[in-house]
Amino acid sequence: MYKHGGNVYQHKDKIDFSANINLLGMPEKVVRAACEGVMNSGQYPDPDCLELRTEISRVTKTPKEHIICGNGAADLIFALVLALKPARALIPIPTFYEYEQALKTVGCEIEYVTMKEEQGFKLQEDFLARIKKGIDIIFLCNPNNPTGNILDKAFVKKVIQQCERNKIWLIVDECFMDFIEDSSNYSVMDYCSQITHLFILKAFTKLYAMPGLRLGYGICSNTELLNSMKQVLQPWNVSIPAQKAGIAALQEKQYVKDSLEIIKKERQYLIVELQILKFKVYDSHANYIFFQAHRGLYESCLNKGILIRDCSNYPGLEEGFYRIAVKRHKDNVYLINALREEME
Amino acid sequence: MYKHGGNVYQHKDKIDFSANINLLGMPEKVVRAACEGVMNSGQYPDPDCLELRTEISRVTKTPKEHIICGNGAADLIFALVLALKPARALIPIPTFYEYEQALKTVGCEIEYVTMKEEQGFKLQEDFLARIKKGIDIIFLCNPNNPTGNILDKAFVKKVIQQCERNKIWLIVDECFMDFIEDSSNYSVMDYCSQITHLFILKAFTKLYAMPGLRLGYGICSNTELLNSMKQVLQPWNVSIPAQKAGIAALQEKQYVKDSLEIIKKERQYLIVELQILKFKVYDSHANYIFFQAHRGLYESCLNKGILIRDCSNYPGLEEGFYRIAVKRHKDNVYLINALREEME
Repeated sequence: MYKHGGNVYQHKDKIDFSANINLLGMPEKVVRAACEGVMNSGQYPDPDCLELRTEISRVTKTPKEHIICGNGAADLIFALVLALKPARALIPIPTFYEYEQALKTVGCEIEYVTMKEEQGFKLQEDFLARIKKGIDIIFLCNPNNPTGNILDKAFVKKVIQQCERNKIWLIVDECFMDFIEDSSNYSVMDYCSQITHLFILKAFTKLYAMPGLRLGYGICSNTELLNSMKQVLQPWNVSIPAQKAGIAALQEKQYVKDSLEIIKKERQYLIVELQILKFKVYDSHANYIFFQAHRGLYESCLNKGILIRDCSNYPGLEEGFYRIAVKRHKDNVYLINALREEME
Repeated sequence: MYKHGGNVYQHKDKIDFSANINLLGMPEKVVRAACEGVMNSGQYPDPDCLELRTEISRVTKTPKEHIICGNGAADLIFALVLALKPARALIPIPTFYEYEQALKTVGCEIEYVTMKEEQGFKLQEDFLARIKKGIDIIFLCNPNNPTGNILDKAFVKKVIQQCERNKIWLIVDECFMDFIEDSSNYSVMDYCSQITHLFILKAFTKLYAMPGLRLGYGICSNTELLNSMKQVLQPWNVSIPAQKAGIAALQEKQYVKDSLEIIKKERQYLIVELQILKFKVYDSHANYIFFQAHRGLYESCLNKGILIRDCSNYPGLEEGFYRIAVKRHKDNVYLINALREEME
């Protein structure tokens, strides 16, 4: 069973609120670079992604030896797990499903920490006590998908320290961190250079609206792990169009600024309107909004030509939880009108 | 260490004879389709590759439920191994290195069958006796890379029967089969529907000259295996440009005809010229030629601006074995002239 949003192939001609893609769409220069990549695809991709890693290195101020690129961030999640072959994992839920799917490929036992509805699905301090010997790996999604919650740096730092003390691999998925305006208060990327068991996951997919091209990367100062990951990955995992698109995307400064601005405005519009409609809206910091409503909302939206993300299949959630992407104003108004109609 | 041909990134401005890519280059309609794919990449790829599988199904006359697509054939090799987790494998060598790399990710023990130089590196009948209980998986590359050898259908049929009898998974890599004119005398794809432990690997990379886009597929009637493979693969492993390119490629009839014709002619030219230069040339049926020469030929070619494939790092080979792709006449003449100069 397909457990994700964005399956517009099974739901044609719907307005897709189910995938968290930047509403501005792929920057024109990125489209052009990817097409140039297509024209150069008569050769194999660079297995080292050297030019791309050099650009990521420049932007993230991380040595390029600490960067690994993947066929989307999901590719790296599987490679990580296969390289580490952890026996026991700890995952706060609800969260992105791929961690669990990847861990299952190596028969890893998974211990869950259920974030509670009454605590706004926010990870609590007592999580730290769960980090102890016997755990091999922890996945932390920040901001979290699907809830939109964000953990501040001080808390994540405590998690990092507790993990490092116990030699536990901590994977911090910051794929949606690019949507956070004051991300330096939250991102722990700058700890990578000193911490040997920390791996940061990043994607181009969301911010640059290019999920169809597949490009993600990871940052980790433990080059032994990166080498092990390369052993479990084919040499040409990142296509030429994806490499070229990534290089072009990292030049886009104004686009990123504009994106954050319009997303903030539209997110605020959606939150207020959803609250007026008496839905319970959770604190959201990224380009999507998580809310609680009555059962069957997914189906009734579908009937109105709108695809939202029914979150009931996330471990840790039940029926009645939904996620919507922040889209362009026209689409957002269309959604709100449809929901209003539904509530009347 | 990078163990493959086609690394034009470390060897810029060389004429690349090291990657076995169709000399005609990517068909224009395929380029256009992939670019259209880029423009649609603001959405996630179809995780089911439904349109692409439908086209493959039409062309290969295989039910689409028996088809799985990958981010290049290499993606599927890793997924196969991870899904099956074989304990013991049998591989005739020299052959494509990725089988071994993939098997190592699950700690599989590998038993080699060394194909001997004095037998033209051709797999012998006594291979059948090696197929017995205790072996979990066999990789057979047909035509074989790098040697260019081809096994006839009658022989492969015996291998299939011996595997089926012992419930051994047989992976037949037919990635270069498209270059064989009378391929129905060699391909065992038509056995797939009846044989439960047979998996055929296919690529778009070579015939349609699109290695940079990453697209391969597998055919197997054991849907349980295909489902297990999907469990170890991310849902969006095949990019939109790759899916679109594949769909367009399968319409290319004249291109394929023209390719086989010109490759045959140019291959013959190269073989004759290499023999005149007193190199030992092995029987080659695909779009590449395997030959033996003196040590250091790789380096002296590089000095002349030509990148050939030094095959000494293939398990089962030693120094002095080389592989060249069949390229356009102008390039082939350039290579032969360089080699003639070298021999004088």
